[in-house]
Amino acid sequence: MAIRIGIYGYGNLGKGVEASIAQNPDMELVVVFTRRDPSTISIKTSTAKVMNIKDCASMKDQIDVLILCGGSATDLPVQGPEMAAMFNIVDSFDTHANIPQHFAEVDAAAKKAGTVGAISVGWDPGMFSLARVYSSAILPEGESYTFWGKGVSQGHSDAIRRVEGVKDGKQYTIPVESALEAVRSGKQPQLTTREKHTRECFVVAEEGADLNKIENDIKTMPNYFSDYDTTVHFISEEELKKNHSGIPHGGFCIRSGVSGFEKENKHVIEYSLKLDSNPEFTAGVLVAYARAIYRLSQEGVSGCKTVLDIAPAYLSPLSAEELRKSMV
Amino acid sequence: MAIRIGIYGYGNLGKGVEASIAQNPDMELVVVFTRRDPSTISIKTSTAKVMNIKDCASMKDQIDVLILCGGSATDLPVQGPEMAAMFNIVDSFDTHANIPQHFAEVDAAAKKAGTVGAISVGWDPGMFSLARVYSSAILPEGESYTFWGKGVSQGHSDAIRRVEGVKDGKQYTIPVESALEAVRSGKQPQLTTREKHTRECFVVAEEGADLNKIENDIKTMPNYFSDYDTTVHFISEEELKKNHSGIPHGGFCIRSGVSGFEKENKHVIEYSLKLDSNPEFTAGVLVAYARAIYRLSQEGVSGCKTVLDIAPAYLSPLSAEELRKSMV
Repeated sequence: MAIRIGIYGYGNLGKGVEASIAQNPDMELVVVFTRRDPSTISIKTSTAKVMNIKDCASMKDQIDVLILCGGSATDLPVQGPEMAAMFNIVDSFDTHANIPQHFAEVDAAAKKAGTVGAISVGWDPGMFSLARVYSSAILPEGESYTFWGKGVSQGHSDAIRRVEGVKDGKQYTIPVESALEAVRSGKQPQLTTREKHTRECFVVAEEGADLNKIENDIKTMPNYFSDYDTTVHFISEEELKKNHSGIPHGGFCIRSGVSGFEKENKHVIEYSLKLDSNPEFTAGVLVAYARAIYRLSQEGVSGCKTVLDIAPAYLSPLSAEELRKSMV
Repeated sequence: MAIRIGIYGYGNLGKGVEASIAQNPDMELVVVFTRRDPSTISIKTSTAKVMNIKDCASMKDQIDVLILCGGSATDLPVQGPEMAAMFNIVDSFDTHANIPQHFAEVDAAAKKAGTVGAISVGWDPGMFSLARVYSSAILPEGESYTFWGKGVSQGHSDAIRRVEGVKDGKQYTIPVESALEAVRSGKQPQLTTREKHTRECFVVAEEGADLNKIENDIKTMPNYFSDYDTTVHFISEEELKKNHSGIPHGGFCIRSGVSGFEKENKHVIEYSLKLDSNPEFTAGVLVAYARAIYRLSQEGVSGCKTVLDIAPAYLSPLSAEELRKSMV
């Protein structure tokens, strides 16, 4: 019998999860929960229902794992513990500083209910967390580096759009190639914020707006842009739509370390991602961990987990024997 | 109290393990077992003993994990089950085709004795196995590619040295850059053996040897060279010693996959290693998994494990709380 999945929230991430489930024959989408009127939502999976989130409790016995597809700012901190009280859950909570608190809250709810929750599943946090932990355990004397991009930062794009005179805009975070090369060489450089990433903005200005002022307002914006070398391009609305409507992303997680009694040998471990669609890739990670969570739940495990707590074999549809034969 | 480690076999790998233990303050080298006369062996760790392997049973209660540093051809198939009957063990068994059998034998011995064994720990198998399993679970529709090098292949270097007229030699396996680029582009190319790697040989010929014949004998050698584009350089003994005495290696494990209902988005996951010393890096992996095995044993687990069966958090000296705070 297939693993029965529910999706909670049907934005870009929820749609990505739906598409990913279709790639996994051992899984079945049962229901999409939405805050909107279900009759206004059209999904691709003809065998699945669409229901309002307020009716989710009625599906308690028909879902093996509920994948939460809301945002980290306000949705997941509430939905995580609430849903873990009824379902096995997976979420992509990505506010790094609040992970310990979110973990504690989901853990308490899940332990009480006898469910399993996996939080902060995605690529950073998620696959990059794995890369950091594996590589620093293997090379304890060294430095870890994380670079993001080239990709669209939603937060920075939003910040641009709040600038006076800006009609629309997209921001790309770009790792500095020379910094990447210095890290890969094994030199273990100390890099400032400015040396690691540049920011490139594509801006559609409102008619008659002061372009110089917009450019200056963006480049000097604290937290978002002032610590970076930022480029601003003014383009037409058509051009923005045509060339910048995708949501690509990616990044590099690099560990540079030494070995030997004289620290005479250098080693570089690099994990990198190049993603056409940030939400669809994240969805793929969520779905693989939904499989893991289902299996853990079947074993009687309860409580909250991160990617660090889950053995890799749980993610694969293959059996342990098949994995040893074909993948080790 | 530190985790007490024994090393079984003191070649390049055993020496690498000794150096790696010195980088891990939660570990302590207790003893090195050798086949040779212990009085002829000088180790770097002044607090550790050197003993003959025939006396290893006497150390049963003084070692938490025994790291087996023998070869996969004849040592580990025997030593793995034998030692798992007395100790928690970690080995780097790397004959891919025989992993299921080795697993079964170590598993039987370990379950009977109540010990834990981790086999095939290193980088391939090992870290590359992890890369293959994680990436194919996340991107189920795609292709996986493994490239090795640039690095010294011990087996191919040995094969060169068996050629008539060859005094000494080293062989480098080199991934073909254009093939790597094609894979990274997301094209999912079908690649032949010849298209993926080239082989470069540095050969010291015996005086008066027929160089053309040596070159031809190498290039046409079945299994080792005939399926590859091979280059042969004749150099002096001094040059070999000066420029080719290291044992660097590395490689690339790449997954190229698609997402979306129309398979419209491409994603590339790349895990790569650039290693100055193949045995010292492998040693770092063995030592991190020794920590994991010790913890599993403390939890009452027994039997054989591969890297796929062990949750990443077990490898790190940090606690689960510290990991969530600083690494997720």
